[in-house]
Amino acid sequence: MISQSSSLENLRQRLALLPGVGPKMAERLAFHILRAPEHEVQSLILAVEETRRQVIYCPICFTYTEETPCRICSDEARKNGVLCVVENPPDVDAIEKSKAFHGRYHVLHGALSPLDGVGPQELKVAELLRRIPAEDIHEVIISTDPTLSGETTATYLAEKLHTMGVRVTRIGYGLPMGGDIEYTDELTLSRALEGRREI
Amino acid sequence: MISQSSSLENLRQRLALLPGVGPKMAERLAFHILRAPEHEVQSLILAVEETRRQVIYCPICFTYTEETPCRICSDEARKNGVLCVVENPPDVDAIEKSKAFHGRYHVLHGALSPLDGVGPQELKVAELLRRIPAEDIHEVIISTDPTLSGETTATYLAEKLHTMGVRVTRIGYGLPMGGDIEYTDELTLSRALEGRREI
Repeated sequence: MISQSSSLENLRQRLALLPGVGPKMAERLAFHILRAPEHEVQSLILAVEETRRQVIYCPICFTYTEETPCRICSDEARKNGVLCVVENPPDVDAIEKSKAFHGRYHVLHGALSPLDGVGPQELKVAELLRRIPAEDIHEVIISTDPTLSGETTATYLAEKLHTMGVRVTRIGYGLPMGGDIEYTDELTLSRALEGRREI
Repeated sequence: MISQSSSLENLRQRLALLPGVGPKMAERLAFHILRAPEHEVQSLILAVEETRRQVIYCPICFTYTEETPCRICSDEARKNGVLCVVENPPDVDAIEKSKAFHGRYHVLHGALSPLDGVGPQELKVAELLRRIPAEDIHEVIISTDPTLSGETTATYLAEKLHTMGVRVTRIGYGLPMGGDIEYTDELTLSRALEGRREI
């Protein structure tokens, strides 16, 4: 608690609500914001407000964008016929950074989690299924997270997509690059062994 | 980089300028701010603006405050005659949390660092020296950081204060509570041994 100023303490509490910001970090940020030059603080506030005003969902793939459709959906050079299905918009950025995928994306906005009340209706599943014939898709790469809900979603989508006669693949499992076998958990190791390839 | 939206990428870059916020954390915060409810974002912006408008320096001890003088300086129950000298306002909060000090504070706003051009004139040193006779101070506890510049400041202040006939003490060095001797650096251990007490 910052006892000498209630507005500073209020700011600290607000900052502590942000993801990954603990009490000490919130205190450090609050003191920094108090001491920072005025233009720096105003630029940050402006960036927050502009982002919230300008960023929308792409009506085709549902990633974040400022254009309709997004840059990837409107890029003619992108390989047609292959869709990469992800849970959330940041996943699109992560895969784009790898430069290993040249098709288009589809963002589900979550993963199936019946216990939390997240069924197919809560996700962009119907929108995905409509894209298959409309865009003449022949392969769907399911890149949901390797978690219980990500796996459940992958299984559910694979079943639906198979009936539409489309090739369904799952992103590979295995050791992360730069990782250390000694410190890798047993589930990852067993998946990595299953996913071994000829060299 | 967030490639699909320039305003989101701009927000990410602004957030990455904050202390302790790395590139991944900045991305996570940017996506959180984009998705957060409007009232949450507005409360945060308001807290930033209020803090910067309302928080001032206490004219006596130079900590952050919204009142003149600050709550500690105006608290009659505080023990008169003892001053705790710290480098920065967050140090006041840290010591207050310990509930181990009942006197008043003096915030230097930094520590001596000749190589960085920080001399006594850049700090609230003259203001400290004026308080000694004015407030009839008999002990000054120097609680600057146990770093090179904190030590330099402590030595410099001790010299000045001794000539004024005031008792000067330095906050104790030693093992942090909950620490582990095995993992404590040798300098801390040697200071801890020097600072040993009869039990």
